[in-house]
Amino acid sequence: MNFDPSHSKRSFSSVGTRPIRPDGVDKVTGRARYGADFNMPGQLVGRILRSPHAHAIIRKIDTSRAAQLPGVKAVLTAADLPDLTNGDAAMYDILDNCMARKKVLYDGHAVAAVAAIDARTAKQALKLIEVEYELLPHVTDVDQAFAPDAPLINDTIFTTGVDPKPDRPSNVSMRSQFGHGDVDAGMARADFVVERTFKTEQTHQGYIEPHACVASVSSDGTADLWVCTQGHFVYRQHCAQLLGMDASKLRVTSSEIGGGFGGKTHVWAEPVALALSRKAGRPVKLVMTRDEVFRASGPTSATSIDVKIGALTDGTIIAADATLRYSCGPYAGAWAEVGAMTAFACYKLENVRTVGYEVLVNRPKTAAYRAPSAPMAAFAVESAIDELAKKVGMDPVDFRIRNAAQEGTKASYGPVYGPIGIGPTLEAVKNHPHMKAPLGKNQGRGMACGFWFNFGGQTCTDLNIGMDGTVSLAVGTVDVGGSRASLSLVAAEELGIDYSQVRTVIADTSSLGYNDMTDGSRGTFSSSMATISAARNAIKILRERAAQMWDIPVEDVTWENGHAVAKGETHGNLPKLSLKEIAAASGTTGGPIAGHSEIVADGAGVSFATHICDIEVDPETGATKVLRYTVVQDAGKAVHPTYVEGQYQGGAAQGIGWALNEEYIYGKDGRLQNAGFLDYRIPVCSDLPMIDTQILEIPNPNHPYGVRGVGETSIVPPLAAVANAVSNAVGVRMLHIPMSPPRILAALEA
Amino acid sequence: MNFDPSHSKRSFSSVGTRPIRPDGVDKVTGRARYGADFNMPGQLVGRILRSPHAHAIIRKIDTSRAAQLPGVKAVLTAADLPDLTNGDAAMYDILDNCMARKKVLYDGHAVAAVAAIDARTAKQALKLIEVEYELLPHVTDVDQAFAPDAPLINDTIFTTGVDPKPDRPSNVSMRSQFGHGDVDAGMARADFVVERTFKTEQTHQGYIEPHACVASVSSDGTADLWVCTQGHFVYRQHCAQLLGMDASKLRVTSSEIGGGFGGKTHVWAEPVALALSRKAGRPVKLVMTRDEVFRASGPTSATSIDVKIGALTDGTIIAADATLRYSCGPYAGAWAEVGAMTAFACYKLENVRTVGYEVLVNRPKTAAYRAPSAPMAAFAVESAIDELAKKVGMDPVDFRIRNAAQEGTKASYGPVYGPIGIGPTLEAVKNHPHMKAPLGKNQGRGMACGFWFNFGGQTCTDLNIGMDGTVSLAVGTVDVGGSRASLSLVAAEELGIDYSQVRTVIADTSSLGYNDMTDGSRGTFSSSMATISAARNAIKILRERAAQMWDIPVEDVTWENGHAVAKGETHGNLPKLSLKEIAAASGTTGGPIAGHSEIVADGAGVSFATHICDIEVDPETGATKVLRYTVVQDAGKAVHPTYVEGQYQGGAAQGIGWALNEEYIYGKDGRLQNAGFLDYRIPVCSDLPMIDTQILEIPNPNHPYGVRGVGETSIVPPLAAVANAVSNAVGVRMLHIPMSPPRILAALEA
Repeated sequence: MNFDPSHSKRSFSSVGTRPIRPDGVDKVTGRARYGADFNMPGQLVGRILRSPHAHAIIRKIDTSRAAQLPGVKAVLTAADLPDLTNGDAAMYDILDNCMARKKVLYDGHAVAAVAAIDARTAKQALKLIEVEYELLPHVTDVDQAFAPDAPLINDTIFTTGVDPKPDRPSNVSMRSQFGHGDVDAGMARADFVVERTFKTEQTHQGYIEPHACVASVSSDGTADLWVCTQGHFVYRQHCAQLLGMDASKLRVTSSEIGGGFGGKTHVWAEPVALALSRKAGRPVKLVMTRDEVFRASGPTSATSIDVKIGALTDGTIIAADATLRYSCGPYAGAWAEVGAMTAFACYKLENVRTVGYEVLVNRPKTAAYRAPSAPMAAFAVESAIDELAKKVGMDPVDFRIRNAAQEGTKASYGPVYGPIGIGPTLEAVKNHPHMKAPLGKNQGRGMACGFWFNFGGQTCTDLNIGMDGTVSLAVGTVDVGGSRASLSLVAAEELGIDYSQVRTVIADTSSLGYNDMTDGSRGTFSSSMATISAARNAIKILRERAAQMWDIPVEDVTWENGHAVAKGETHGNLPKLSLKEIAAASGTTGGPIAGHSEIVADGAGVSFATHICDIEVDPETGATKVLRYTVVQDAGKAVHPTYVEGQYQGGAAQGIGWALNEEYIYGKDGRLQNAGFLDYRIPVCSDLPMIDTQILEIPNPNHPYGVRGVGETSIVPPLAAVANAVSNAVGVRMLHIPMSPPRILAALEA
Repeated sequence: MNFDPSHSKRSFSSVGTRPIRPDGVDKVTGRARYGADFNMPGQLVGRILRSPHAHAIIRKIDTSRAAQLPGVKAVLTAADLPDLTNGDAAMYDILDNCMARKKVLYDGHAVAAVAAIDARTAKQALKLIEVEYELLPHVTDVDQAFAPDAPLINDTIFTTGVDPKPDRPSNVSMRSQFGHGDVDAGMARADFVVERTFKTEQTHQGYIEPHACVASVSSDGTADLWVCTQGHFVYRQHCAQLLGMDASKLRVTSSEIGGGFGGKTHVWAEPVALALSRKAGRPVKLVMTRDEVFRASGPTSATSIDVKIGALTDGTIIAADATLRYSCGPYAGAWAEVGAMTAFACYKLENVRTVGYEVLVNRPKTAAYRAPSAPMAAFAVESAIDELAKKVGMDPVDFRIRNAAQEGTKASYGPVYGPIGIGPTLEAVKNHPHMKAPLGKNQGRGMACGFWFNFGGQTCTDLNIGMDGTVSLAVGTVDVGGSRASLSLVAAEELGIDYSQVRTVIADTSSLGYNDMTDGSRGTFSSSMATISAARNAIKILRERAAQMWDIPVEDVTWENGHAVAKGETHGNLPKLSLKEIAAASGTTGGPIAGHSEIVADGAGVSFATHICDIEVDPETGATKVLRYTVVQDAGKAVHPTYVEGQYQGGAAQGIGWALNEEYIYGKDGRLQNAGFLDYRIPVCSDLPMIDTQILEIPNPNHPYGVRGVGETSIVPPLAAVANAVSNAVGVRMLHIPMSPPRILAALEA
């Protein structure tokens, strides 16, 4: 579906307006139903027993005492989850992560589970399960794990992407390289070079709602799962595969979601809940505690990144080089590869090279977190760029504008860009009043750029027109940030009716075709594409019905502003027919009117943002205060500008937390020391200023309305923007994130 | 969609087999969720206050004391349900029936409702509502209400269908007439005439599950309704209209249904539950008690029917005449019209006339009950036919065979029959061993025929093929008798895959297009038609994908037994591709594969049955015992023979109960005296023999597999078959149903 260039100038009726979100009232009044707000008659309480060790062999599990406790209806170990993954390594890892099979690989790794009549009994049962561990040496730091003499986490992993193939296992599961030109020759020509090593700590998405589900398996094998997820179709597929079920036999309904940000793209407790229900013969509700969420869901990678960039005296970057080490937990991942792809994506570079190393550590299996891998790479690169601009003697914005990628640029990760927004966001930042505002003592200003790919993927939408002319839109991309409102706007726009006439729901997996996960900022992009396609299919039928009602050829009927219009020359006297009138007659003209769409939403447009941050540092305590923050980002076309702004603000807020405070702290014993919101501190409202936003619209040529994904890019620049601001405020280059008060004090002292 | 005649000889792979029903395990293990098995956080308990009077003006309702009771969150009267029906008389009646507006019209009529934090508080609140009634004379008997001097129930009703138009209101809302030829002239030629008046009492469908729902209305007007119903799309439409909502804003999910049989085709408490939730701002669960179900849901018509039939000495029926009076509760209906249409539908008649009168009474608003109106008409006609055969001196089966309708016969209600099954069912009965089995003392055998139209109507189906090749079929006709299994069979048949690979679910109203009610035996007929159409649309896409995978033109790909096959001549070397293989590749060949269908399922084939009943009567007590019972019925094509047999048996069982025991008993005060299963006695297993069945298959030419509706016809003959058996056993013609022991004793004494 190609963008109609005329749309960039067309006046939209619904798209671009800011109606009240349909889920808003329910969410503020408590009517919205989240993962834990569902109950089934006779349901049991599921609980999971977790390893207190970072790395150990499971010698023996004795569940007999737990099984005998009155009120316990099922006790589960890996033995109840036979390996049905058929050589699919990624699925095997998911299985092993759901329930440790031979070894526990991190503090919090699941080893057994129970289903009991109440929470008290379940908790008591967990205590009666006896596990015999043989402790193994562990490693939780990415650099230590990368070292050749590190304790080996998985002896079946041999580094891929290296030549010759290694002959012994390693904690490095993958090496990946991107770039073009001759970096060494370019670097030799450079007049100025900056070379730095940066480090970022592991963070959690910090969603407020813990993982929660209710699973119910019938003795004939059909099953239902109510679950908080970013992708119920993917959950269905994974659970079905792990449990040996036909996908169609498992009906998955997604609840409202209290935040996901990538952390609810993997199954964690869901296969366990289903297996418990299958064993107990009763529904099982399983809600993770906050402690479990921190210890055993999917935080980000911790990273260690070397960056070297060279520039000519005229400000041209002549060579750029980066080596990125990303931790991925105890299973193979591809996070470093993504980091290596995004690192220099904002720039037009003659000579560029990035090398990523995927590093296993005894920490939870890494999951996506909003533009996964990109914020850390941007932190390193944008910090170095800032330093290099200073060396060259240029304003950091002008330096970036000079080197910014543009339409036709070959991206550092391979493709050639179409129309993109990095230049316009930089120009907008250059002209933004924020850049000219005065700063006080101990205050600094930083800016930084960010890039994200955005995804498309498989998407299905059903649009049904009721007999009263109101429209039910069933979509399959979980609404994580207001997409129901956006998709209602798109349906209304295309059909030519009012927004209030459309209700969009997230259909369950039995009622709609397969949809990929809501990730990669694909929700509104791909479901709007499918909605437009479905609406156009419905309009085709509406025209046919009008033609039938008028008894004229369908070719003589056009669709304009919600009405069928007969062509004037031949049928001048026919008054136009509204959608409502055609719908009211549908029972006698052929039945219900609908439009359907099953697509692979190709052509997600890349997205760029530039952020500005003002910060004040207390030199005595190292405490920081964000004074002002501005996000400028290209949305392609903002379907619901308020939500787009919300996404910009949310990503910035999370990035600021990551930059300043959030980190997983592991003890020498390999155990997580701050598994709770008291000790793992995410920013609250009082920690942040109002975040200003500016939406740019550089249409995506592959979408009929020009829409790009907007959800993720906003978390990419903040780490670097805040670091540049702090560095400017304290006069020392900050190399380690989070820039918590102790680290700032240490930097000041050094 | 026309029947492919080759199908009548084709060998089906799935259709016609008897797999285990997918809902069976859940229903016997208690996992199935019915109307009352759903809960929402913060839900209130709704209860309805009902009139103790049969006919009264509501002078005043004072709800103030109830509203002040702690724990009461909403009190509702008709004032909270303004009339939004816009002159739609049928909808106005529904509104008034849900909550009496000016007068109460029957014992049990709703006058107010409350929502409270628990059942105890709700009950207490009902007691605090003060209603001031002004009593009016009432009438509950159909014949008394028909009399010119009867108390007038509704002064806005003037009899329709009479000429000249009446100048004063009447309890007769409609006169309708059908037939052809010259009945009086025919009757004058008759050698033998039977003339009788029959009476049947009002019965209830006797579904085990009471009406139950959970309604939740948000302050922004969007709403959800979980409800036990035969048609959630119709409920949505009615509730939306009554409450002034857009249909798309109301998402209705149908629960499992513990019986409906026509009684769950109307809204009763649902608009009240929604209005309570809207007023209280919280979800409301409303479950009717058994007493309420009897007093205030929708029982059948009581009837009074005059039949006169004349025959020649050769056994030809030369004239048939009937006048049918059907009660309809206190609102206009069309039950007598349907009775008048069905009365003589089994026969080929030169001269026939039926006149129906619709009679208002102070009883609950009549609802459909399985082939509504037909059993009473058949009781009268088939009793008279039996008597007439005796007079003519012919065997009752032979007499019917001689006069049976056949292909080309002009039906008494108008149309000309296509291929029909009345003759074959009679032939089968004639040859059935049951007819030859000896009878003992005080035992009698009866047989009788029955007819039902069967309906089609608006139907939507979505068929989605998962990436593992298993199929999700979403339909919108509530499964009242096993249609999920039947539709899975049909999808499997059409796609060429195994039954186990398909899961059929009933989608909610937001996830699928509009479907008419599951009534008129339309569920399997019309949803199978839509499923076949959807499957064929999916096969078209499967063929396209295979062509793409092979890189050959789609015209060269056929679909055979679940596989894409490349035409041999040109592409001989290509091994066929299974549905599973094509589905697995779908992500890279264009996305998810689906088939959709929105149709008006025209061409439901009429259905006929003939039943045989052996009964023993205790002459001292008048007690009866059904010794043996056989159902022979045309199914067109039995998709799942076990369910077809179950429908035959279920209809027969209900008809036997109606014939022998069930009746509404009203006191002189106009109050129902037996509102419970202790005093209103439906047959239980120990009351009945195993009911034998024989399925005939005379394909319906309008359905691709030849399917006809099967659910209702089986309740049409039993009243007559049992009455003929009892009459033969006791030697007295039984004219009044139910033939309870007192009535049999009275007949014996007379």
